[in-house]
Amino acid sequence: MDQDKAKEILESAPFHKFLGLSFDEYESGRVVINAPFRQEMIVNNEYDIMHGGILASLLDIAGHYAVLSQAGDRVPTANFRIDYLNAASGTETKAIGDVVRVGSNLAVANAELRQQKDGEWQTVAIGRGSYSVSHIE
Amino acid sequence: MDQDKAKEILESAPFHKFLGLSFDEYESGRVVINAPFRQEMIVNNEYDIMHGGILASLLDIAGHYAVLSQAGDRVPTANFRIDYLNAASGTETKAIGDVVRVGSNLAVANAELRQQKDGEWQTVAIGRGSYSVSHIE
Amino acid sequence: MDQDKAKEILESAPFHKFLGLSFDEYESGRVVINAPFRQEMIVNNEYDIMHGGILASLLDIAGHYAVLSQAGDRVPTANFRIDYLNAASGTETKAIGDVVRVGSNLAVANAELRQQKDGEWQTVAIGRGSYSVSHIE
Amino acid sequence: MDQDKAKEILESAPFHKFLGLSFDEYESGRVVINAPFRQEMIVNNEYDIMHGGILASLLDIAGHYAVLSQAGDRVPTANFRIDYLNAASGTETKAIGDVVRVGSNLAVANAELRQQKDGEWQTVAIGRGSYSVSHIE
Repeated sequence: MDQDKAKEILESAPFHKFLGLSFDEYESGRVVINAPFRQEMIVNNEYDIMHGGILASLLDIAGHYAVLSQAGDRVPTANFRIDYLNAASGTETKAIGDVVRVGSNLAVANAELRQQKDGEWQTVAIGRGSYSVSHIE
Repeated sequence: MDQDKAKEILESAPFHKFLGLSFDEYESGRVVINAPFRQEMIVNNEYDIMHGGILASLLDIAGHYAVLSQAGDRVPTANFRIDYLNAASGTETKAIGDVVRVGSNLAVANAELRQQKDGEWQTVAIGRGSYSVSHIE
Repeated sequence: MDQDKAKEILESAPFHKFLGLSFDEYESGRVVINAPFRQEMIVNNEYDIMHGGILASLLDIAGHYAVLSQAGDRVPTANFRIDYLNAASGTETKAIGDVVRVGSNLAVANAELRQQKDGEWQTVAIGRGSYSVSHIE
Repeated sequence: MDQDKAKEILESAPFHKFLGLSFDEYESGRVVINAPFRQEMIVNNEYDIMHGGILASLLDIAGHYAVLSQAGDRVPTANFRIDYLNAASGTETKAIGDVVRVGSNLAVANAELRQQKDGEWQTVAIGRGSYSVSHIE
C-alpha cells in the first residue's frame, strides 16, 4: 500500500481519529506513528498513567501499518503479544512498527512505543503480532 | 478488592469512561464487564468492524479486574496475548475475565469477548495475560 | 486426520519417540497425550524439576494434534505462548489439546499439562497456539 | 551469574546434555548458545524438519541465560512466546538471547535461532519471554 492510501486510512478510521494518529515515517517495512496525548487515554488520574489498552492499540496499529507497507490492502491482526516495560505517562507517544517477515499466509511484525522522559526517548512497551496476509485482495 | 471499590475505579478512569464500562458480574476470580457500542470504536466504516485495539483493551481490562477481585489494589499488566477469532462488529460487547492462578509474584488470567450475532453470543476474541501482584501495597 | 494416521505420526517422529508419547484420547477437536517420565527431561537434578522446554514441547504437540484431528495433514505451528503455573516434577505428564477455532488460514488451540501431586491432577502449565491450516494438501 | 557457573549449569542439566549445548558467547545481557544437530531433534524424517519443541526449548534457554547473566541464580521462566519464521532443518543451530529489561519482579528477554542455509545464517524462529527475577536468592 502506498503512503497516500495508508495515510488516508490512518486518518479516517474513527478510532484512529480518536487517537489523533499521523505518520512520522512510512517506508517499506517500517513506520513511525505519532500519537498526541489526550486526557481520555489515562487509567489513573492520580499518577497520570496511560492505559495499557491505549498502548496495546498503538502497538498493534504500528505493526499493522508496517505490514501494510509491504503486503496489500487488508492484513487483519491474527494475534498480538505485548510486554509492558515502563509506566507510560500522559504525554506524546511514538509507535514504531517493523516487519520481521511476510510469508504467504502470515506476516510477523515487531512494534515498540517510546515516550520522552527527562529529555530522552524511553521504550515503554514492546509488542509482536501476526497478521493474515492471505486475505490480500 | 471489594466490588464497590472496583466499581469506583472501573467507572472513574478516563479511558474506562470513554469505553462506558460497567460490571455485569463481579465475584472472586471472575468478572463480566459490559461495553456499550460507540462510533469511535470502529476501524472500518464500510464494514462496521470494531478496532482490534478496543478489543485488546477490553480483554486486558477483564483479565485485570478478575485478578483485582482476588489480589489487592494494584496489579499492573506485565504482558498479554490476544487471539482474534471472528470480526467484531459495532455492537455491545461482553468482556469476561477469569483468574487462572494467583502466585506470589504474578497472576495469570484468561479473558474472552462476546457479541451477539443472529441472536447468539459468539466469542470474537480471547486473551491471556500476566499481572504483577507483588506490587500489592 | 483419523486416529490411526495420527497415532502413526505421533509414534514415529524421532523427537516424539524420545518423549515416549502415546494417545490417551483422540477425538475431533480434543486430544490427551501421555508422556512418561525420563531422566533427560530434567533441568535441575537437585530439585527434580522438569525442563520448561519439555513442557513447551508437550503443550505445542497437544495443540497440534488437536488441530490435526479436525484439519488435514499438515498444520505447522505459526506461534505459541506458554504460561508456567507450577513447577513440574519428574513424573508422568498428561498433555491435553483443545481446538478453539479452525479458520480458513489459521487454527487456534489451547493446551494444558497435568501431573499428579499428592494423588491429584494439578495443572502445571498452559499454552495457546496458532497453526497454519492453509498449508493443507 | 558469572560465566563459569553458567557454563557448569548449562552443561550439567540432563536436558541440556541431551541437546549438547555450549556457549559461543556469554556476556552481560547477551548469550549465544550452540546446539549441534542430533537425529532425535527431528519431527519429520521425510523432509528433515526440526521439531518445534526443540526450537522452543532453545529459544527459552537462550533468553534464560541472557537474564541469568545479569540477574542472579534462579530466574524461572514465567511465560514465553515463539514465532516460527522458516522451517528449521537438521543442522547446527545458534540460539541468541538478549535482555530487554530487568525489573524488580520480572525480566524480559528476546531470543532468536539461526541456522546456515546456502552458506548464510538465516533466522528460523524468534521468541520473547518473561522471567521471574524476584526469586533471586
